[in-house]
Amino acid sequence: MKLRGNALIGQSGGPTTVINQSLVGLVEEAVRSDEIQGVYGAVHGIQGILDENLIDLGRESQETLEAVAKTPCAALRSVRKKPTREECEAVLRVLQKHDVRYFFYIGGNDSAETAHILNELAVAESYDVRLFHVPKTIDNDLRVTDHCPGYGSAAKFVAQAIAGDSQDNRSLPGVKIDIIMGRHAGWLTAASLLARRYEDDGPHLIYLPERVFSLDAFAGDVERMLSKHGRCLVAASEGIHGADGKSMLESKEVDSHGNVQLSGTGALGDLLAAEVKARLGSKLRVRADTFGYLQRSFLGVYSEVDAAEAREVGRTAVKIATAGEVPHGSIYIQRLGDGAEYSAGFDVTELANVAKETRDVPDEYIAGDNDVAPAFLDYVRPLVGEMPVAARLSDFPLGG
Amino acid sequence: MKLRGNALIGQSGGPTTVINQSLVGLVEEAVRSDEIQGVYGAVHGIQGILDENLIDLGRESQETLEAVAKTPCAALRSVRKKPTREECEAVLRVLQKHDVRYFFYIGGNDSAETAHILNELAVAESYDVRLFHVPKTIDNDLRVTDHCPGYGSAAKFVAQAIAGDSQDNRSLPGVKIDIIMGRHAGWLTAASLLARRYEDDGPHLIYLPERVFSLDAFAGDVERMLSKHGRCLVAASEGIHGADGKSMLESKEVDSHGNVQLSGTGALGDLLAAEVKARLGSKLRVRADTFGYLQRSFLGVYSEVDAAEAREVGRTAVKIATAGEVPHGSIYIQRLGDGAEYSAGFDVTELANVAKETRDVPDEYIAGDNDVAPAFLDYVRPLVGEMPVAARLSDFPLGG
Repeated sequence: MKLRGNALIGQSGGPTTVINQSLVGLVEEAVRSDEIQGVYGAVHGIQGILDENLIDLGRESQETLEAVAKTPCAALRSVRKKPTREECEAVLRVLQKHDVRYFFYIGGNDSAETAHILNELAVAESYDVRLFHVPKTIDNDLRVTDHCPGYGSAAKFVAQAIAGDSQDNRSLPGVKIDIIMGRHAGWLTAASLLARRYEDDGPHLIYLPERVFSLDAFAGDVERMLSKHGRCLVAASEGIHGADGKSMLESKEVDSHGNVQLSGTGALGDLLAAEVKARLGSKLRVRADTFGYLQRSFLGVYSEVDAAEAREVGRTAVKIATAGEVPHGSIYIQRLGDGAEYSAGFDVTELANVAKETRDVPDEYIAGDNDVAPAFLDYVRPLVGEMPVAARLSDFPLGG
Repeated sequence: MKLRGNALIGQSGGPTTVINQSLVGLVEEAVRSDEIQGVYGAVHGIQGILDENLIDLGRESQETLEAVAKTPCAALRSVRKKPTREECEAVLRVLQKHDVRYFFYIGGNDSAETAHILNELAVAESYDVRLFHVPKTIDNDLRVTDHCPGYGSAAKFVAQAIAGDSQDNRSLPGVKIDIIMGRHAGWLTAASLLARRYEDDGPHLIYLPERVFSLDAFAGDVERMLSKHGRCLVAASEGIHGADGKSMLESKEVDSHGNVQLSGTGALGDLLAAEVKARLGSKLRVRADTFGYLQRSFLGVYSEVDAAEAREVGRTAVKIATAGEVPHGSIYIQRLGDGAEYSAGFDVTELANVAKETRDVPDEYIAGDNDVAPAFLDYVRPLVGEMPVAARLSDFPLGG
């Protein structure tokens, strides 16, 4: 079914380092398409539509697009906004006014939900518009898809950071606690396992939000690693929580999707460091770093595989939308092979399958309460790709 | 004056990402030398000498050495220790026992001081040993040298982090505060200026410890930037302090050199974020990240120029030591040209010139109380080298 009209693209939620690859994939495929006339961008996502703050993406040069594709964080600028029903109606009127027949929303599960609501409204009003969610999130916690564009690059950043910090910890021993993003799921924290090359390399302890965290068990774990290795590097998710499900650190700040603020503060790391000192001795050298926004926005460190897949997810969205067999949906990635045979396929699923819900790290990838299982490496390695390697001296004895 | 015997190498203080380039430069030149027989390493610096925890570096393969050179953080492992007079005497006895005639200590000004004390003791005891300090520090605050090995790479990390975070801040506006290392001097924080490409790019405010910091002025600065840009990215040194010279955040933890702990905690960033909220409104989106150890240990991000110079500083130390015209000293880097003509020379200065004292960012590189002067870019660019570039869309209006 041919549908002619304009296309509108928006970006939503937290940035990734490859989110603009998807944007550029959408633009280049939309420009090529016979069905699509104008290719527009909404500045600051759904808010930009409400404000009619739209720009013409079709006029961008290929050179600018390629440079933007390599730049982290939403080039269209982003928003954290769950539109009300009235706002969704207003959005639809703007789409109608500009004859937008294709709307692509790059974002996480909140964005899929927004697209889902818009779609129901459009159907009710009999306005023919094709609505597609283009996935992105460093958290990797979307349903259906094998992994999310943005995750591989963030995982690479975390792995290189932990690999370096493990050398730091070996060089100047003590307890070091690194707090890693991932509100609901431990995918990004689990990627720290990529840094463990030698048996005594950090991270020595990995805490995911998929397991219950207790300060008593934590202090015991650290003490055990200290007596084993003389040092201890901890990778902990910002989402770790007690048996009651409450975060170790409850913040009063809640965004309009009901998410608690865990990032952009060093408080959780500092709290854990203070607990270790209080329990294991105030003379112990204990430090905490919260990797923070660098994980999602650091310029220049990204996974090549992730960048290519993020681009392809955008292209696929336009191809499926203009083909017209499926009028709306969320693009997902299928894993077609493993290890050296790794390859990915791209397809579409129902918006409702991706909206709202998140996906945890499954049990097979988790080892006990404080580690990640080696099986996880088979999952994550192809997504991260080539990584620099940390080497050691052989420590030959004198007079050998 | 020929002096035959063994060489011993140690690493001290906080890591850099190129500190092992200097180690490998020392080893490869020492192995080549006719005067030097065994090439030994002290594990954990001066502590390793006291414990006679020595290893044979001469037996390492070239392949291992090259891999180690690219690995961040002291491969010999480090120490933060100011030896007492008794310990210095014990160190000298270990050097004598192992016929060590060349001692190279890679470190900051504390290490230069240790080498200086050891030298005075050796002279008093008429033990012929050549003692050389090989500089490293991400802080760039050593005297005499134009810049320190380790600085260019840390500056590159900071510049890429801020460039990415500036996109993040533009994408999801608000106030973002980034805390950057540099206990006494603002060199590393100043490097954040490299991220400013467009007029409204962050960092919008840069605070160095060379100027007095006040929370009142800070809140006013942030408010002004918010009304100008609708957002504000702040780069602040961990060493910012009030008119009384006291750090914004006094920690009780002091190491044996009398240094206060400022790194390894997110408390300063959180304090500044809380102040902004308290003064400018609790609904304002304010976040803080403390870049922490990633600045000194991140695997895979380094400056090529810095890596090459760190290697050459090590080689130079052995050449000067074995030539014998100068029996002890600290290696320094001279800037021989600027811009595209940049090149570096390597020479030696007295240990006493480098020991203890630090070097601030000079006035010519500072703009007012909250910014860095463009002249600083000429200084820092050649040290950082090529950097990825953050690009923007053109924001063409619709119907143009």
